[in-house]
Amino acid sequence: MRPHVTVNIAMSADGKISTKERRQVKISGNADFVRVDQLKAGCDAIMVGIGTVMADDPSLTVKSEVLQRARVSRGQDENPIRVVIDSRGRIPVNAAVLCRGPGERVICCAEIIDPEVLQSLESCATVIIAGKEEVDLDGLLCQLYVMGVRNLMVEGGGTLLWSMFRMGLVDEMFQYIGNMVIGGSKSPTPADGEGFCLTGPFVKMDLVECVPIDEGVLLHWRMRPPCQVA
Amino acid sequence: MRPHVTVNIAMSADGKISTKERRQVKISGNADFVRVDQLKAGCDAIMVGIGTVMADDPSLTVKSEVLQRARVSRGQDENPIRVVIDSRGRIPVNAAVLCRGPGERVICCAEIIDPEVLQSLESCATVIIAGKEEVDLDGLLCQLYVMGVRNLMVEGGGTLLWSMFRMGLVDEMFQYIGNMVIGGSKSPTPADGEGFCLTGPFVKMDLVECVPIDEGVLLHWRMRPPCQVA
Repeated sequence: MRPHVTVNIAMSADGKISTKERRQVKISGNADFVRVDQLKAGCDAIMVGIGTVMADDPSLTVKSEVLQRARVSRGQDENPIRVVIDSRGRIPVNAAVLCRGPGERVICCAEIIDPEVLQSLESCATVIIAGKEEVDLDGLLCQLYVMGVRNLMVEGGGTLLWSMFRMGLVDEMFQYIGNMVIGGSKSPTPADGEGFCLTGPFVKMDLVECVPIDEGVLLHWRMRPPCQVA
Repeated sequence: MRPHVTVNIAMSADGKISTKERRQVKISGNADFVRVDQLKAGCDAIMVGIGTVMADDPSLTVKSEVLQRARVSRGQDENPIRVVIDSRGRIPVNAAVLCRGPGERVICCAEIIDPEVLQSLESCATVIIAGKEEVDLDGLLCQLYVMGVRNLMVEGGGTLLWSMFRMGLVDEMFQYIGNMVIGGSKSPTPADGEGFCLTGPFVKMDLVECVPIDEGVLLHWRMRPPCQVA
């Protein structure tokens, strides 16, 4: 058993989630900001890769006080459990995701992590060891399920998302497409990593909805089960 | 003066126009195929980069006989002028774009082209020399305008499109987003090349339309003039 996994990304019309310097760009607008905050407030945990933490230092907190209070009144923490995929434990102890706002934190490392680094991380978060050199995402999701996580939101970056897509661990995706071209053969995209070969099997999806929001478009996709991949 | 420039691309939901092997994947479906054929039939010239010719060997012909006949009845060739951007004249003389279907061909090279190569190309196409080491796209578009080209369609690849976007030479873009994830940090995207820095100025656009087609979505954007770039 694993949580229901929802990917949320914002990209430029040419498929970039940030510039070549891996720095975040304001791609969406206020209406989409509210939508993402609601999505975040409605999930049990929110996950990012260490690359995103290092590049953007996001706090991943719920921004709306109304939504925070609604969570608390449901007996939840103000913020979802914040989960960072970080094989070697590179996360700085002063990262916003560890320091800002109340709520549980989980850092997922691989067995190769240095024991001293592990010890220092355990002082500021729950550390899960899953996998030898890289984090075993499949096993990790099972552990999160056991911890009570039923709805998991994944925000990126492109390396983590590629692994999630490739392993068939994504159930749905909200994709905001902004009204800009960023360009760059080395700029991060929503699915980087190795990529599928010409023979696939590509991850296939069904379109649930397509609506203009702010100056761009929001697409909502539901992933087809891997067995149905054409 | 330059032609009105319309970009047409099909990409996966994660912003890839082909796999990492640079081989084309069927991203759209029949309805979109018909739309693209109509767009093609309605333009005076259609342009691609040499990378696309080498990877996909497209003929760039109008496929519908009805549309072919309509062009001829308007006093046009059956196919739009086919234009290949090819600084060094790498195009094989048996490329489909040079051999298949009636109509004019233009190969655009830079001054560094080998004189012998130039001579062999002149036997199968009109050759325009514009720019020293790379094709001067601005100058080329002026020359196409003088040749009578008022509507130019650009199909890719990502290197040519990046240059067109960066130089503010695009007026509108039709973008089909397919229901698949291809992945790959090295897979081609709709705008590769150098990419904008964090300070921009990014190319900004206005959304004209967003409609579900086949199993994906078609977005129609109108580019903002470069002077209005935020």
